[in-house]
Amino acid sequence: MRGMVAWLQRLLICITLVLAASAMASADPLPSWDDSAAKQSIIAFVDAVTTLGEDYVVPEERIAVFDNDGTLWCEQPIYFQFIFAIDRVKALAPEHPDWKDRQPFAALLADDMKGLLASGEKGLGEIMAATHAGSTTEAFAATVSDWLSTARHPRFNRPYTDLAYQPMLELLAYLRANDFKTFIVSGGGVEFMRGFAEHTYGIPPEQVVGSSGATKFQLGPDGKPEIVKEAKVEFVDDGPGKPVGINRFIGRRPIFAFGNSDGDQQMLEWTAAGDGRRFVGLVHHTDGVREYAYDRTSPIGKLDKALDEANTRDWTVVDMKVDWRKIFPFD
Amino acid sequence: MRGMVAWLQRLLICITLVLAASAMASADPLPSWDDSAAKQSIIAFVDAVTTLGEDYVVPEERIAVFDNDGTLWCEQPIYFQFIFAIDRVKALAPEHPDWKDRQPFAALLADDMKGLLASGEKGLGEIMAATHAGSTTEAFAATVSDWLSTARHPRFNRPYTDLAYQPMLELLAYLRANDFKTFIVSGGGVEFMRGFAEHTYGIPPEQVVGSSGATKFQLGPDGKPEIVKEAKVEFVDDGPGKPVGINRFIGRRPIFAFGNSDGDQQMLEWTAAGDGRRFVGLVHHTDGVREYAYDRTSPIGKLDKALDEANTRDWTVVDMKVDWRKIFPFD
Repeated sequence: MRGMVAWLQRLLICITLVLAASAMASADPLPSWDDSAAKQSIIAFVDAVTTLGEDYVVPEERIAVFDNDGTLWCEQPIYFQFIFAIDRVKALAPEHPDWKDRQPFAALLADDMKGLLASGEKGLGEIMAATHAGSTTEAFAATVSDWLSTARHPRFNRPYTDLAYQPMLELLAYLRANDFKTFIVSGGGVEFMRGFAEHTYGIPPEQVVGSSGATKFQLGPDGKPEIVKEAKVEFVDDGPGKPVGINRFIGRRPIFAFGNSDGDQQMLEWTAAGDGRRFVGLVHHTDGVREYAYDRTSPIGKLDKALDEANTRDWTVVDMKVDWRKIFPFD
Repeated sequence: MRGMVAWLQRLLICITLVLAASAMASADPLPSWDDSAAKQSIIAFVDAVTTLGEDYVVPEERIAVFDNDGTLWCEQPIYFQFIFAIDRVKALAPEHPDWKDRQPFAALLADDMKGLLASGEKGLGEIMAATHAGSTTEAFAATVSDWLSTARHPRFNRPYTDLAYQPMLELLAYLRANDFKTFIVSGGGVEFMRGFAEHTYGIPPEQVVGSSGATKFQLGPDGKPEIVKEAKVEFVDDGPGKPVGINRFIGRRPIFAFGNSDGDQQMLEWTAAGDGRRFVGLVHHTDGVREYAYDRTSPIGKLDKALDEANTRDWTVVDMKVDWRKIFPFD
């Protein structure tokens, strides 16, 4: 009897999926994309690799990788994870009275951004260590989740996860509907991103590749095993680190890659250099009204060398202002 | 028209899957397992977490992890990857005339296993570096693939991939049919295991977690991007390294874990310590006739502390001789 019920459940699920899939196939899968060259290049690629023919790619090899900050969600006025770190320093300050007289914490607590930036990489490292290390992985995940549910973006006054790009959410769903496996490959902290990637993008934790600190397995005070986050940086998933991270965590070369800054250049080159048809895309932030306009000289998400390379090759450059009818789900 | 064809293709695939699934549901999913307590504990667990009720687990959380050497395939008379390394030293020897007079290579080339083992960890490290580093990841994958297609196990005189355990192949398929995502978490080299895991176990490269050496992204002589394997050890996925690797690569705690040696103990503890119902299993090599019999004093796959812990807890210990009707697919 159980078997019969399970049989019917599966058949029902399948028919639903098929109807949904065929509905998607007939409707426009990318409604927030203007019907421009960028959108056409995406659809032409997906049709080519999913249709039996010279460009056909078996589903197992349909690996798509996406940078996160500035590609899947907004990264201005500064990386959201850094805002999380700033909020954490303020929340933890009462337990650290010495921070009032110690840089870079003193500058941060006084909202002195100039002084904070003056502390440079070393200062940034101290802030990341103070806010991302010392707790168990489970306690950290809870902290990230609390922050995401309460923090608001200074300009849009919405939860940061509302600032995912609607056209990219449609692209992720379109690729998965065509049997692609979608991955994040980002310089952001892997445990920070895993706090929202599944809910916001439909990307499960095991498909999130990012920068990470060292961790240690130990028996906790209660004798229960736990994994503790340490202050030591273990892997920086940026620049040349991105293809290295792809090789380490995914173990196959992607056939589809999307980024938005020079930190994505080597990931895009690695993807483009594979045999067979490939798709390589860049988001160019050109819309200062609906989002932000920045590229070659921006301290955040600098897009200079990669833009030059894209222009000399057949990479797809998305002009946000022109190619995206809608930027955020709430627009 | 294309949409219609795709629609029909999908429906056909689905109906096939449903029929297959329901066929499996009715037939015995684990025919090579004796109808003993071990088999019953597996089926009871899978029924519990896949049936709506207090033990139900949503499919996304159905993470199952398996050690490889001695758990999914044979590890005697010595880890197969070490035999690969030995064969590689012999194949590369002509390019390294100095090896004839340099330990540990001289001992290895003279088939002096005693002398080779006398070189200890340092010697083993030199052999691994000489055989696993210096090439691109793609060249290394080709070397592994060539070796797997030609090398033969000294006792069974078959390709090493024939020495996967039939009962575990059935278990992997049974778990996947119940919407589990199956991962390898092994001390073996990740790039070595990725050379056969998909074909032999149906586990894709991105679900293989293992030990690894550092790699470097660079532009090759032809100006094409490449990833080169370096001699530096980057991560040892053994003992406490296994839960660390699970956290780093999978990002969720498994609900099902299977191992066979003390190197798996912390992975099993980490799995067992999660909330809700868990399955923890150990393969005990008790069949010297059909395979090998070894445990507490074996230099390879030593099973001592983990066996004691299993006996004091509700872990499932598989008695190979009694619980497995068939060990290898060719039996």
